[in-house]
Amino acid sequence: MKAEDMSRQELAEFKEKVQKEYDGYKALGLNLNMSRGKPGTEQIDLSLPMLDSLTEQEALNMSPDYFNYGQLDGTDEAKELFSPMLGITKDDVIIFGNSSLNIMFDTVSRCYNFGVLKGSKPWKDCEKVKWLCPVPGYDRHFAITELFGFEMINIPMSSDGPDMDMIEKLVSEDASIKGIWCVPMYSNPTGITYSDEVVRRMANLSPAAEDFRIFWDNAYCIHHLSDNPDTLLNIYDELKKNGKEDMVYIFASTSKVTFPGSGVALMGASERNLDYIRSILTIQTIGHDKLNMMRHVRFFGTFENIKAHMEKHKEILKPRFSAVTDSLEAELGELGFGSWVKPNGGYFVSFDSMPGCAKRIVQLCKEAGVTLTNAGATFPYGKDPNDSNIRIAPTYPSIEELSKAMKIFTCSVKLASVEKLLG
Amino acid sequence: MKAEDMSRQELAEFKEKVQKEYDGYKALGLNLNMSRGKPGTEQIDLSLPMLDSLTEQEALNMSPDYFNYGQLDGTDEAKELFSPMLGITKDDVIIFGNSSLNIMFDTVSRCYNFGVLKGSKPWKDCEKVKWLCPVPGYDRHFAITELFGFEMINIPMSSDGPDMDMIEKLVSEDASIKGIWCVPMYSNPTGITYSDEVVRRMANLSPAAEDFRIFWDNAYCIHHLSDNPDTLLNIYDELKKNGKEDMVYIFASTSKVTFPGSGVALMGASERNLDYIRSILTIQTIGHDKLNMMRHVRFFGTFENIKAHMEKHKEILKPRFSAVTDSLEAELGELGFGSWVKPNGGYFVSFDSMPGCAKRIVQLCKEAGVTLTNAGATFPYGKDPNDSNIRIAPTYPSIEELSKAMKIFTCSVKLASVEKLLG
Repeated sequence: MKAEDMSRQELAEFKEKVQKEYDGYKALGLNLNMSRGKPGTEQIDLSLPMLDSLTEQEALNMSPDYFNYGQLDGTDEAKELFSPMLGITKDDVIIFGNSSLNIMFDTVSRCYNFGVLKGSKPWKDCEKVKWLCPVPGYDRHFAITELFGFEMINIPMSSDGPDMDMIEKLVSEDASIKGIWCVPMYSNPTGITYSDEVVRRMANLSPAAEDFRIFWDNAYCIHHLSDNPDTLLNIYDELKKNGKEDMVYIFASTSKVTFPGSGVALMGASERNLDYIRSILTIQTIGHDKLNMMRHVRFFGTFENIKAHMEKHKEILKPRFSAVTDSLEAELGELGFGSWVKPNGGYFVSFDSMPGCAKRIVQLCKEAGVTLTNAGATFPYGKDPNDSNIRIAPTYPSIEELSKAMKIFTCSVKLASVEKLLG
Repeated sequence: MKAEDMSRQELAEFKEKVQKEYDGYKALGLNLNMSRGKPGTEQIDLSLPMLDSLTEQEALNMSPDYFNYGQLDGTDEAKELFSPMLGITKDDVIIFGNSSLNIMFDTVSRCYNFGVLKGSKPWKDCEKVKWLCPVPGYDRHFAITELFGFEMINIPMSSDGPDMDMIEKLVSEDASIKGIWCVPMYSNPTGITYSDEVVRRMANLSPAAEDFRIFWDNAYCIHHLSDNPDTLLNIYDELKKNGKEDMVYIFASTSKVTFPGSGVALMGASERNLDYIRSILTIQTIGHDKLNMMRHVRFFGTFENIKAHMEKHKEILKPRFSAVTDSLEAELGELGFGSWVKPNGGYFVSFDSMPGCAKRIVQLCKEAGVTLTNAGATFPYGKDPNDSNIRIAPTYPSIEELSKAMKIFTCSVKLASVEKLLG
């Protein structure tokens, strides 16, 4: 029965029942966590053989150049291997260190201090910098643009991506808008993939600011959960058709392919963008860890093998995601206490509660021993205007832990929702 | 015979002889390089066994935490192992990625954008930022402060360090002076180590700018070349005595201990400084490569073993440096065509020609097939006011190559000098 069809009396009875259930969970004194978007140990173990892919014996047969300074923008082999992740040729790729977040931070910082290209006005010298933030989105993106003092503008997400009407209008009218955060595939946290139409419109933006940049964080480009994975149109190809390829920076990493913290991160962009970036990079650093690049190259060999490796991740993650979405369906499906999408990939399940309930749900979960990402975290400044979105991260806990945690979560949703309805 | 004691006739005869010798070298069509401050292959091979220090088998006995996200400021074991390089306790250390240059760049960038501490005025908002540059010094330091648009002020170096009278006066009078680059041990390129007195005075500066910072790049702290190595007073201890420990950032790396490009870099600073840095770092990155830290930890085990490892480097480098300084002594010692210091450590021999000769010497060398670092590179903006300093990097070439290259170098010095004297 849908909650909205219940009488006040029925709601009160429902609440009493749910409260009892909740109190029971609370009494168990559990300590569970669905906040961490990180791979589980079983996933990480898949990559342990990589540690043996570059031994002393094998090093003796390699060029000494890998072991010395040089190759500022990464080894050729790593560019060759990883460029398909970005959907870009290897000449338009720089291989960095272990963190794509770090590349994005540095990219914002570089544009801020020195401009997007030689001769461009540094963003720090602009009276105001505004930034488009599809919401809900990734908190660590928003943290970067907040730190640099940009004014962040929420762009609503629908099932095919961000609201392109709004984006087109805003960027064409306001030259202080310098960029947009996008997680185009299996978006963090909603799990949706931008439709071809959205990508085409994104690639055909005509921003008032000629130094406008799309930050295309393709973090989950090969992180499928379904045998019928989503597909994402290649934004770089679309941009080139329009002669607008300078407008995008594309990011990816192997943090959730091999080792978080010891993976390889990369960036794709136009030759003009990359030449400028290299001119700053050569002042910033001696280059990145070529041996770790080569460890990856030797372990995987081909992009096909990377995809095969990700199939193994999929098999580990699928039951975890099912534990979450099955529980949501079973416990909340009928009631109408929220909505969610069963994602075909990525690292999260995004749950939207009835408006005004998210904080209360997170609090109730916490009091019953289940840690969730803070309500609001998926919005700029941590402010969800509807107090509705909650990001669930199913990858790290065991299935048993997830099942327990989801019982408490769905119970908390019911309790918070009925509290709200009863006013 | 000293050149200054020669008659004009004697000089002309000397020139003719040297010119013939030079033309002979030129005809050989050699291709030699003394510009690269990087370890040779023999040195790098010393660290190849480190590649086997973290295998799949051993990984199975390690905490999964090393393989996942987390530990933003580095692993405890790496802090313990490397903090003695900085002369600082492990609690006051952050372990970064593979490049101390990158830490320095990011540190300048952070102070520029966000200030040295919470609430400090960002340097970008200061009308003018000036920076003290002991000269000759490290070109990549100067490139950073030039990129950020700071006005660099040359500070003369003597055999016991930079001119402290000048530094004390400048920093106490001018609040726009925000920092100083220092390579306090086996300085790049002069090879000298700051005296205790210089370190004490440095640690007791009273800058007009309360956000003044000493960038203490202790790049060669364990890179000895002599059995009677220099010693450097611990600046952090001195600063603490004066209650001024916030005034320094200390940097080091294993780029020239293990693998350039695949080493570990670190920074030491006061708790107050580090807390603030961590608060920005957590927005900038997911953290640095813990597996590479642990590879180093497992390979070395103790700081004593690192020092023993550096003894092996010393044995490889000593004859290379001797090839350079012996040649200088043999060919130029009597003539008075320049001066140099035989360093007890580090990576360079610094040669000072007669004023106005350095560019010509580098050009003559180039035309005879010997690449040197550009004259002027050791000064801010690439401008050596005396056109005198040349940095010789003896580590990478073989001894045979070095000997040939030094013959051409000393011949070029003679030729340029006598050209100058004859006017």
